[in-house]
Amino acid sequence: MRRPDELRSAIEAYLDGLQLSPDLGGLEEAVRYALAGGGKRVRPVLCLATTEAAGGDPEQALPAAAALELVHSFSLVHDDLPALDDDLERRGRPTAHAHFGEAQAILAGDALLTEAFRLAVARPEVAGELAAATLGMIAGQYLDINGGGRDRAELNRLKTGRLFEASVGCGLWAAGVPAEEQEPWRDFAADYGALYQVVDDLLDDDGLVLELGRERTAELAGQTTDRARARLLEIPVDTAVLLQLVDELAARAR
Amino acid sequence: MRRPDELRSAIEAYLDGLQLSPDLGGLEEAVRYALAGGGKRVRPVLCLATTEAAGGDPEQALPAAAALELVHSFSLVHDDLPALDDDLERRGRPTAHAHFGEAQAILAGDALLTEAFRLAVARPEVAGELAAATLGMIAGQYLDINGGGRDRAELNRLKTGRLFEASVGCGLWAAGVPAEEQEPWRDFAADYGALYQVVDDLLDDDGLVLELGRERTAELAGQTTDRARARLLEIPVDTAVLLQLVDELAARAR
Repeated sequence: MRRPDELRSAIEAYLDGLQLSPDLGGLEEAVRYALAGGGKRVRPVLCLATTEAAGGDPEQALPAAAALELVHSFSLVHDDLPALDDDLERRGRPTAHAHFGEAQAILAGDALLTEAFRLAVARPEVAGELAAATLGMIAGQYLDINGGGRDRAELNRLKTGRLFEASVGCGLWAAGVPAEEQEPWRDFAADYGALYQVVDDLLDDDGLVLELGRERTAELAGQTTDRARARLLEIPVDTAVLLQLVDELAARAR
Repeated sequence: MRRPDELRSAIEAYLDGLQLSPDLGGLEEAVRYALAGGGKRVRPVLCLATTEAAGGDPEQALPAAAALELVHSFSLVHDDLPALDDDLERRGRPTAHAHFGEAQAILAGDALLTEAFRLAVARPEVAGELAAATLGMIAGQYLDINGGGRDRAELNRLKTGRLFEASVGCGLWAAGVPAEEQEPWRDFAADYGALYQVVDDLLDDDGLVLELGRERTAELAGQTTDRARARLLEIPVDTAVLLQLVDELAARAR
């Protein structure tokens, strides 16, 4: 079993070596800039770890894992735009539109999304899972800018949860796990996505923290961690690396 | 053989009945608005006519044909944005951002592109063809906003040509035509795309008309029509409906 940091290196190397469409020309720079952003590659690592836990070869899941990261990058580039969240900085660097201008940022986001599908098309289940999750994520962003904060749980489930479920789902498809055996894994994915959101709110001091206060949100993080761990322990295979991912995520909030 | 107007009705009915992702919620209105725009469905009709000419059942090609129209609609919505072409009207109606605001237009474009892949994923060749063509189209728009007018032919080949080639290509995949037999069809697609661009410039009094003058552009339209017809006559099947599409297109410029 590869450790989380080994899986992270594998996806970084794959993304570094990824051939983008030669048509892109000068637009490639903005696409690479957005993709390089220094993220922790949480979704592709989750995908690769799922594939290996489910008995597959994580090398086979690299295109799907990369596609998930490209979709995630696309969503950041478009969400940061002036008409949406209007963010000028992300992870200590100017956002894509702050660096390349709005027109290039829109087109670079479009290219990231399309490149994701170019990577995913070889496996119809992976591509279908990715498309459905991306539509959920876009709908979540729509709710967010239209005051969907009224139902935070639904908003989070769409905006962040769907792509986490797809990360596990794509990992399962890559390992050849049939649909009827996927349910316990997907239950775990829902809890992992929920934990990600709670931890994110704790780190940013917003969302749930504003609603429930820090203490109750921290309690919720603990409960969600326990539930995610319990889900994994119900799956009768070696899920040690996935357990480690849960613990790493929970530790970020401390 | 179905006539062009029958194929147009078939794609209109398919698009009308198309189930979008239930997640979209309130964003569906902007997606439908963009898709309803009153276009002539040139790309899906070309796709369906190609499938039938190549011996396939156009019903089988409807998802691919619809996916082509969704990609086309996505490109119009994003190209019309203030940061790109900044167009407030298209075909006598407010553009998507003029009607729904910029944020919704960005998200509706993203949703159209993703829905296109949701339709296309069942056939890896179709989805792959669509992704590659879309990347070419995005690159063409990038060239256009960055003064790529220096090489108009390259710009047109990317910005409009690639999706026309994909329309024929997807039609061929849907008919089961193997890659090694597709070349003459793709040569025709290149000429059809070039004719579309010349006619468009004649109707809008821009592009080639500004470069060559009306008379020489009209001559070029005639030559391109003849070449497209000649390409079709070299393919040893009944291409009558495709010939009719060429003639309809050429007639628009008169």
